Amino acid sequence: MATLCRPSIAVPEYVLTREETLRLARTMHADHPQLGLVLRLIENTGVRTRHIVQPIDETLKHPGFERRNKIYEAEAKRRVPQVVYGALDNAGLGVGDIDMIVYVSCTGFMMPSLTAWLINTMGFGTETRQLPIAQLGCAAGGSAINRAHDFCLAYPTANVLIVACEFCSLCYQPIDVGVGSLLSNGLFGDAVAAAVVRGHGGAGVRLERNGSHLVPDTEDWISYAVKGTGFHFLLDKRVPTTMQMLAPAMRALASQHAWDVSGLDFHIVHAGGPRILDDLCHFLGVAPEMYRYSRATLTERGNIASCVVFDALDRLFEDGGADESARGVIAGFGPGITAEIALGRWTGSARLGEPGRRAAARAGVA
Amino acid sequence: MATLCRPSIAVPEYVLTREETLRLARTMHADHPQLGLVLRLIENTGVRTRHIVQPIDETLKHPGFERRNKIYEAEAKRRVPQVVYGALDNAGLGVGDIDMIVYVSCTGFMMPSLTAWLINTMGFGTETRQLPIAQLGCAAGGSAINRAHDFCLAYPTANVLIVACEFCSLCYQPIDVGVGSLLSNGLFGDAVAAAVVRGHGGAGVRLERNGSHLVPDTEDWISYAVKGTGFHFLLDKRVPTTMQMLAPAMRALASQHAWDVSGLDFHIVHAGGPRILDDLCHFLGVAPEMYRYSRATLTERGNIASCVVFDALDRLFEDGGADESARGVIAGFGPGITAEIALGRWTGSARLGEPGRRAAARAGVA
Repeated sequence: MATLCRPSIAVPEYVLTREETLRLARTMHADHPQLGLVLRLIENTGVRTRHIVQPIDETLKHPGFERRNKIYEAEAKRRVPQVVYGALDNAGLGVGDIDMIVYVSCTGFMMPSLTAWLINTMGFGTETRQLPIAQLGCAAGGSAINRAHDFCLAYPTANVLIVACEFCSLCYQPIDVGVGSLLSNGLFGDAVAAAVVRGHGGAGVRLERNGSHLVPDTEDWISYAVKGTGFHFLLDKRVPTTMQMLAPAMRALASQHAWDVSGLDFHIVHAGGPRILDDLCHFLGVAPEMYRYSRATLTERGNIASCVVFDALDRLFEDGGADESARGVIAGFGPGITAEIALGRWTGSARLGEPGRRAAARAGVA
Repeated sequence: MATLCRPSIAVPEYVLTREETLRLARTMHADHPQLGLVLRLIENTGVRTRHIVQPIDETLKHPGFERRNKIYEAEAKRRVPQVVYGALDNAGLGVGDIDMIVYVSCTGFMMPSLTAWLINTMGFGTETRQLPIAQLGCAAGGSAINRAHDFCLAYPTANVLIVACEFCSLCYQPIDVGVGSLLSNGLFGDAVAAAVVRGHGGAGVRLERNGSHLVPDTEDWISYAVKGTGFHFLLDKRVPTTMQMLAPAMRALASQHAWDVSGLDFHIVHAGGPRILDDLCHFLGVAPEMYRYSRATLTERGNIASCVVFDALDRLFEDGGADESARGVIAGFGPGITAEIALGRWTGSARLGEPGRRAAARAGVA
């Protein structure tokens, strides 16, 4: 039984408050015909603070796609290893115990992906499978969990390391001044996250079933325009309404598992914005406090894309976890519009890896 | 037992011959200090013809990354459906029978990836899993087969559709005039391919084991420089020597399966260039004719990136396939430097899908 162990998260040192965000919107877009609407939308996000990889003055400049992508690469190399070590420690495993690395990130592009550098630099085995996913956006956190689960179903003793690296501030586009873009500028934050799915043992969420759902004919609701200036995030104003279509998919997957989605013990979902959480309460018949972890992520860190589900899950762990065998759902939402949904039970029993295997792995002989 | 069924391939209508390639190199780079070397390298590729999505005059212009990516999207939408239908027909399945789409492509970037459009346009189920991979380059064909195999191990009745879409001509960069770039300009071609991995039934390669190998500290041997002008392919001159490192990985995986890699009945490998095939003969102790399918792909279509393994496999099918239970290897090689290797046995028995399920799927009720 595959278990999603406690994630490790890190946010950058530069902090952007709501007040600073509003002040910037007011001064930079003083003549914008819909400035009032933009300010209200930013206030309504509920985001209080965000963390970004560069000081705000640097963030607001666009040094070109090439330079930005180099910053992405440098910052990823600087920040990812610590969360990888944190996730391995949380899972009681070493680098030699990992059979696959799923790397999800939609805010920079490298080929080869960071997986090759991680294997070379951190000492993962040369046979480690690499699964880089760049095109599932905010749904990729859920997708990574689900593909890791599938891998452990295929190879029951395997362990999968998930890494999510999102520097949304590096996709800031000064020339984009539509309402959706200005809202996004006030919503997204930067973070890195990692978590291990253990085939055997481990404490956390024992994964039991997963599924995906695409909302028909919504391909252009969340998308990138790819230009010489890089990735331009396009957000359709209908996106906040999508929970009406995705809540039934969550209910259906739970029903296939003979669970009632309204009666689950924990919900860890992508906090794309406040409306998503409010609507899930409504359409799933769930109390608002069920989304306190996702809401805390949104409030304190903004929408950190594929990292959200890991940050929210980490808060559940920090809060003491759930009762043994408590039933829950984890769901990522993103472009497509796609939902990646996982169902599992809480397990507090941490059967750690065999010491012999770990020692051998650390010595590089595994 | 998962079976990789017969692929379907399509190449674009514009043909570029070796003579035309050499003529272009001579006229466009008449003053190049290493022109003689470049011409010899292009002649040595053995590539006789390539197919490209635009006439050569258009191909040689750079209309900007944005415009190029729009061409990528339009050409993908125009050309992929026919190979998808071809692959489904070859597998005896309909769109409603597919549980996951693995989409591999490194020559254009879309978010959401083409998977969302395929599901919406071709009528795949809304629960179809989407696995887009953009960062494994030429190794992605092998990776797609291996992840599809894993998925069928996890869900033994599942069927996975693989789509590979590579328009390498859209990565032509006029400003890159290093020897590696000019060689690449004479080597790569465009193609689209699709194949189904059936969980049960089907004729083709019954997948038995897969593995991955990363050659340590070769991250920068094959890579993209990401710039405002798009992806710039960087090829280190040491790349042709990599079979010395990858052949032992192929041998090791075969040994784990109690097979001798030198005694296999068929080899379907990525034909990145002629040296790769020559060296595999040498290091694996295999006769040159064992690589006749991969070499024919290289000769007639050039290096078509992640499509190569499917094109070469299609030639094995066209040639009548192998004997029942004949043992073989499929391997993709690409950035990392990564090898994705699959071992399997030929099966000629095509137990097709249950007619009821297919009919239901076609009626859209599956």
